[in-house]
Amino acid sequence: MNHILKGTLDGQSVKLDASTRETLYDTSFYGRPMDNYLELTLIEAAYLTYKNRVIVTREDKDLDFEDLMCESSRREGNFEVKYIVYKDLRERGYFIKPGVTDFRVYPRGGKPGKTPSKYFIHVLSERQPVPLTDLVHQVRTAASVRKELVMAVVDEESDITYYGASLRTMKGDMRPASTDTAIRATLLEDRVMVWDSHSSDLLHKHHLFGKPLDETRLQLSLVEAAYLQEKNIIEITDSLGEQPLTPVEFSDTSTTVETGFPIKLAVYRTLRDAGMVVKTGYKFGNHFRVYKKVDASVGMKHSEFLVHALDSDHVFSLPQLSRAVRLANSVRKQMVFAWQSGNNIVFLELGRMKM
Amino acid sequence: MNHILKGTLDGQSVKLDASTRETLYDTSFYGRPMDNYLELTLIEAAYLTYKNRVIVTREDKDLDFEDLMCESSRREGNFEVKYIVYKDLRERGYFIKPGVTDFRVYPRGGKPGKTPSKYFIHVLSERQPVPLTDLVHQVRTAASVRKELVMAVVDEESDITYYGASLRTMKGDMRPASTDTAIRATLLEDRVMVWDSHSSDLLHKHHLFGKPLDETRLQLSLVEAAYLQEKNIIEITDSLGEQPLTPVEFSDTSTTVETGFPIKLAVYRTLRDAGMVVKTGYKFGNHFRVYKKVDASVGMKHSEFLVHALDSDHVFSLPQLSRAVRLANSVRKQMVFAWQSGNNIVFLELGRMKM
Repeated sequence: MNHILKGTLDGQSVKLDASTRETLYDTSFYGRPMDNYLELTLIEAAYLTYKNRVIVTREDKDLDFEDLMCESSRREGNFEVKYIVYKDLRERGYFIKPGVTDFRVYPRGGKPGKTPSKYFIHVLSERQPVPLTDLVHQVRTAASVRKELVMAVVDEESDITYYGASLRTMKGDMRPASTDTAIRATLLEDRVMVWDSHSSDLLHKHHLFGKPLDETRLQLSLVEAAYLQEKNIIEITDSLGEQPLTPVEFSDTSTTVETGFPIKLAVYRTLRDAGMVVKTGYKFGNHFRVYKKVDASVGMKHSEFLVHALDSDHVFSLPQLSRAVRLANSVRKQMVFAWQSGNNIVFLELGRMKM
Repeated sequence: MNHILKGTLDGQSVKLDASTRETLYDTSFYGRPMDNYLELTLIEAAYLTYKNRVIVTREDKDLDFEDLMCESSRREGNFEVKYIVYKDLRERGYFIKPGVTDFRVYPRGGKPGKTPSKYFIHVLSERQPVPLTDLVHQVRTAASVRKELVMAVVDEESDITYYGASLRTMKGDMRPASTDTAIRATLLEDRVMVWDSHSSDLLHKHHLFGKPLDETRLQLSLVEAAYLQEKNIIEITDSLGEQPLTPVEFSDTSTTVETGFPIKLAVYRTLRDAGMVVKTGYKFGNHFRVYKKVDASVGMKHSEFLVHALDSDHVFSLPQLSRAVRLANSVRKQMVFAWQSGNNIVFLELGRMKM
C-alpha cells in the first residue's frame, strides 16, 4: 500500500487508474470513482503529493510538490487558501468532499455513503469583501439541505478561523410598558430628558429604559424616546417646551443627529416588541446589548447578545467581522447582525467554531 | 452657609455678588473671581442649581433646574454632554476648571493655585466623528504644557468612557535577519512560499517570519515578503518561476491584492527596523500584533501591542475606536494607531482610563 501511485494532470483534475480506487477511495474517500478511472481534485492531488502517496505527471514529466502547487494555483482561483483549509480539516480527522460552497465536511466519525455531511465550508481569504446578501444566500442554501454553513477565513499568515453562521429568531420574556397619560419629556440636542421622579422611576426601574441623570431625572436615548413615543408612553417637546413633536418630526431630527437612525430604530422596535431588554452596545463597539430578561429588582447583569444593525446592502470586511465576533465572544455574548428584508428584520448569528 | 445664593444669567455665564467668593470659590473652586463679582460657567451654575446651592434668575424670574438646562442647551453647543462629564468628575472628587479642550482637571488631592492641573479633558458625544489630525493636535497641545489628554466619550445612554491618548515610540530587542545569498521564494496569489526546509527554518525559527505550511515549506505574508525582499534576504518569482520580480513589481501586485498595502508596509518596516517582532493582528481585527522581544527557542507568547495602520486623513468613528480599544484591553494589549507624517511613522497609543 505504500508504493506511490501515478496520476495524470488533466485540466482541473488528476486522473488515476481505476485500480487505485480501493486504496484511495474505499478506505480514505479521496477522489471520485468514475467508470474507468478515479478522479482527484487538484487539492486532493496536492495533499496526496505532500503525503507521498501520489505522484502527478504532466506531459510524462513528474511534478514535485512545488511544481504542482504552482500549476494548480494558475488553474484554480484561491487554490492555496483552499489547500490550507483542506489540509487542516483532513488532519483533524474529517472526511471532505467538494461541494457547492467549496467543501462538504462529514461529522466527526462519519463518512461518505454512511452518514450525511454536516457542514458546508466556505473558504475565504481575509482580504475578500463579503456582501451580506451572498453570505445569507449561502446560509439559506446550507439550511435548505440541513447543513450548517461554516466560513473558514484564512488570514494573511495562513491561520484559519472557523465561523458558524445561522439565521435565528430573537425572543425575550419582558412585559410591555404602558401608562394612563403620556409622560412629558424634552429633547435636548441628542438625548431626551424626563424631569419628574415618578415617571423616571416607572420607565427606568420597571421597564429598564434610560439612565438616571440624578435622583430625580432620567435621560433617554433617541431610539428609546422614539419607541416610547410610538407607544404613546411619552410626549416629546423641544427645549422651548411648545407644541409636542410628531413622531415624524422627532424621527427626522434624530436622523439628522445619526444617519443610521431608521434601521437602528426598526431593529430596536423588533427586539423590544419581542419582549427583550435593549440597551446601547457602545462599550462593545456595536449598536445594542440585548437581554432576554431582566429582573427589575436586581438590575441589569449579563446581556446575552450584541446586536448590530446593518443596511441590507452591507459588505463585510473580514477583519471588521473578526473584531466584532472576537469581542462578543471575549465577553461571553453572541454576536448577531440585523437588517431589514421587506417588512421584517432578519437576524444572523455569527460565532467562532472549534472544528 | 446653607442658604441659597442668587445669580443672574448673562449670556454664556452667571454672575453672583462678589461676597459669594468665599463660599463658592475659596473652598470649592467654583467660578472665576472678577473685580466686582464671581462668574460661573453655565455648567457650574447648572451643577450648583442641582445641588441647591445657587438659584439662577433671568429677567428677575427664578429658573428651576429644568428651565436652566433648557436655556443653557440653547446657549451652548454640546451642553448636556459636557454637564454629564462635569458632574461625574466633580462627584469623583476632582476640581475642574474650563480649559482649551473643554476642561482642565486637577490631580486627585490637588487644587487650583496650589497644584498644576494634570489632565486636559475633551468631551465628545459618541456620534461625533473625530479626525485623526484634530485628535493629534489636541494631544500635542496638551503635551506641550505637560498635560495628559483625556477623551471623555459619552454614549447615547449617557455612560462615560475615558480614554487617555499619547504619542509614543516603539522599540524592541530583536537582531536583524541576514543571509549570504538570497532565498528563493514564489508568489502564489496573495502569499509567498519558501520551498526548502533550511531557509524556512532560518526565517521562521530564528527570525519569526512566516508560518510553516508543513515540515518543509514556509508561507510568508505579503508585507513580510516585501520587507525581506527589500533587505535582499529573499528573491521572489511568480508561479512560472521566470525572472525575479523587482520590489516595485512586487509592491504593485501586493497593492492590487490589498489597497492599503503601502502604508501597512511602511508601518511594518518601521516596527521591524526598530527591533520588534510583527505578526498579523487579524484575529484581533487589527493589522498587527507586536512583540518587543521573542525568545526563538520558546516561541511566541504574549504580544504587548496591537497596531493598526491608518491613512493620515483618517476620521475615527467613536464606536469603532471603542471596539478596537476594548478588544485590545480585554486581551491585555495596548492599542496603538500608526500613520505616515512626512518621512516618519507616528504612533498614537489609546487606552481606557479609570478616573
